[in-house]
Amino acid sequence: MASPEIDALTQALARLPGLGPRSARRAVLHLLKRRETALAPLVLALQAVEARLSTCEICGNVDTSNPCAVCTDPRRDTSALCVVEEVADLWALDRSRLFPGRYHVLGGRLSALDGVRPENLSIDALIGRVAAGGIDEVVLAMNATLEGQTTMHYVADRLGDFPVRVMQLAHGMPVGGELDYLDEGTLAQALRARRPV
Amino acid sequence: MASPEIDALTQALARLPGLGPRSARRAVLHLLKRRETALAPLVLALQAVEARLSTCEICGNVDTSNPCAVCTDPRRDTSALCVVEEVADLWALDRSRLFPGRYHVLGGRLSALDGVRPENLSIDALIGRVAAGGIDEVVLAMNATLEGQTTMHYVADRLGDFPVRVMQLAHGMPVGGELDYLDEGTLAQALRARRPV
Repeated sequence: MASPEIDALTQALARLPGLGPRSARRAVLHLLKRRETALAPLVLALQAVEARLSTCEICGNVDTSNPCAVCTDPRRDTSALCVVEEVADLWALDRSRLFPGRYHVLGGRLSALDGVRPENLSIDALIGRVAAGGIDEVVLAMNATLEGQTTMHYVADRLGDFPVRVMQLAHGMPVGGELDYLDEGTLAQALRARRPV
Repeated sequence: MASPEIDALTQALARLPGLGPRSARRAVLHLLKRRETALAPLVLALQAVEARLSTCEICGNVDTSNPCAVCTDPRRDTSALCVVEEVADLWALDRSRLFPGRYHVLGGRLSALDGVRPENLSIDALIGRVAAGGIDEVVLAMNATLEGQTTMHYVADRLGDFPVRVMQLAHGMPVGGELDYLDEGTLAQALRARRPV
């Protein structure tokens, strides 16, 4: 029999991915018992983000500045562009610090099932960035799913008229993967793309 | 390469129980992409709780009112008291709606290892509530752990001088439990407390 305020907080937290009703209750109790060290800092952190949140007008990243920190970073290689489906993919790739260039977030993937057509994704904006010049290489880093690969081929077609190298990610065994546990699709890719030792 | 504000929010969320760095990032992305439907309501819910959070001076529950909603509920049976270790236990029991009385939160359990002694728990406050009269039955609903049971026996001793029934929870097989998967301690308890069908 918690108060309406505590119930509302529990429900708001339970809607986050990775949290259900039970873990949301545990999180709320954690916050209630640590008002100064957990609850207050979380409120401040959320407010700070809420006040300054925006979508980058260049690449589609969400950040507290617009253009985002990636697009305004002077150390970035402006001649390389990595195209991803979602902001989460941008973050995942950028955490690895392996790609020196900038990004372009499509905002989803082509899907006949979900009714997502090319005009629903920021493909025209991507073409615009490439048409503006200065870009040598475009890496299409879509998910290795059917819809991701469909999107990749569509975007590759659209980029065919421009003097840029259009690249895709390598497919094969994940590092640490065991043959016995791999699905057939991955195995087939790994075998097809085999190379000398 | 997220902004400092987004990093701070991710870290604040990652400290919640049940969330790690990866799930906190997913939760932050979820919030960023749903500013109006997820981020704003969460900020409001947290602020509402933070503004009114207090510990109940009667039972030790945390709530947005003091005394808490349980202690001020006129439909509660004031002659029955259920003693629990933590606020989480109170919530768990109260969700089941099986106990009609009120609660008393000890704030932990006796532990030689962690240096928790009787004076560190709200045992004196419990004695005070019982000594004030009007209570017929005290249910000691401690965890079925070594420390929980030690605490239970200590509290039961302290309550020995008062004209109240001091009860403990039943031990045995959990509902849906399979013999083959039960630990020996539970099996022994279930066998020892066997009763006619």
